[in-house]
Amino acid sequence: MKKKIKKINAAILIIGNEILSGRTQDKNVVFISNWLNLKCGITVKEVRIIPDMEKIIVENVSILSKKFNYVFTTGGIGPTHDDITAQSISKAFKVKYEFHKEAYKILEKYYGKKKFNDGRKKMAKMPKGAKLIYNPSSAAPGFMIKNVLSLPGVPSILNSMIENCTKFLVKGLKVHSKTLNLYTVESNISEQLAFIQKKYKKFVEIGSYPFFRLGKIGVAIVTRSSSISKLNSVNKDLIKLVKLKKIQLLNI
Amino acid sequence: MKKKIKKINAAILIIGNEILSGRTQDKNVVFISNWLNLKCGITVKEVRIIPDMEKIIVENVSILSKKFNYVFTTGGIGPTHDDITAQSISKAFKVKYEFHKEAYKILEKYYGKKKFNDGRKKMAKMPKGAKLIYNPSSAAPGFMIKNVLSLPGVPSILNSMIENCTKFLVKGLKVHSKTLNLYTVESNISEQLAFIQKKYKKFVEIGSYPFFRLGKIGVAIVTRSSSISKLNSVNKDLIKLVKLKKIQLLNI
Repeated sequence: MKKKIKKINAAILIIGNEILSGRTQDKNVVFISNWLNLKCGITVKEVRIIPDMEKIIVENVSILSKKFNYVFTTGGIGPTHDDITAQSISKAFKVKYEFHKEAYKILEKYYGKKKFNDGRKKMAKMPKGAKLIYNPSSAAPGFMIKNVLSLPGVPSILNSMIENCTKFLVKGLKVHSKTLNLYTVESNISEQLAFIQKKYKKFVEIGSYPFFRLGKIGVAIVTRSSSISKLNSVNKDLIKLVKLKKIQLLNI
Repeated sequence: MKKKIKKINAAILIIGNEILSGRTQDKNVVFISNWLNLKCGITVKEVRIIPDMEKIIVENVSILSKKFNYVFTTGGIGPTHDDITAQSISKAFKVKYEFHKEAYKILEKYYGKKKFNDGRKKMAKMPKGAKLIYNPSSAAPGFMIKNVLSLPGVPSILNSMIENCTKFLVKGLKVHSKTLNLYTVESNISEQLAFIQKKYKKFVEIGSYPFFRLGKIGVAIVTRSSSISKLNSVNKDLIKLVKLKKIQLLNI
């Protein structure tokens, strides 16, 4: 008997004043969302960007961890005073914030006993019971506690650690997608698109996104479904519409 | 007598499956946050990215409009079936979702009577009582209702409309910032930074952000304050620390 695979979802909680203030362009949402969908069949359902403030982190971790299967946090696990993610998650789950023995050993070995100062030791402090997410780039591990996985904010380090999250995650139903790029405007096809969306309501999600490319305006029609056959059917209907309206296709 | 300027805050609500799924990189948070701070003295305190689902939009608009002075929504105000921002905001504020006379005229003129189909007419439907945010790029206006300002998701169009939001906003206290780029690692200065942050606790926010540039690792120390004199003082202290630790500065 084929095992039924469930729909599994996640939220991403971006912790950092530098993203909120517009100083830094976030790149972690695109990376984590794509990785979760393609590698794990997990769909990201909500993202929040919040400041480095304990009360706000505690509140958001509490809400999101109840609402979604997994929560990925990024940022705030470094050595400086504004890195307060680990202590805030400890408070959210009402567990001790203490040295993780293995993390302490990893960091002590990496920096050497003499240079292992208080700031560096801070990176070994985690919620009691946390499991380590190993860091092949810069030693300081992330951690998982309950359904929350905490990763650093620096994209290159986060990217190098993401595969080490795999073992903690239950896999879900993969969502497949197809994109048709049409040289037309949305309002030329909106009625027919709505009709097609209605026909496939339960199975396929149709998105319509205007673009500007090579001096021409167009619309990307993105279809997403966990069923490849339904995805093929809806795309056949879309191609019929394209031919009927004599719209130029940028790709098929 | 000098008029006392208040702290004014905002939230950004990004509406769109394409951002959540990781298909599209959001660029509107950086743009809106910087514009609000530099031009209006308004600080963005929270960002949420949510799917194109009425129930979820209604819920988030209700929560955020109570919590913050202003809410900027992006996305979902076009002509297709997945554009449901205006109808959802109407529900959130329990007002009618109906044709806005001026918006209708603008769009009818832009497309011409013959080509003004139902999809295009949909872009003139708004919450009753909404005020228009004019669109110099592609005619279809955004709107403001209560403290919520709705803009389109396409960055180039949004950028062209942002100045037309100015008249709806009460200006706040501008936050100034300075950045020192140091060739060091965070854990080398974390203790002294924490000390300096404590000293200026009420007046200056100090952020510490690792970077990789030209093959070297470094830390950007970003100080933010509404007081320029306090900002200068904290930066003098930081320069002292840099000299004491013999750290190379990338800029001053």
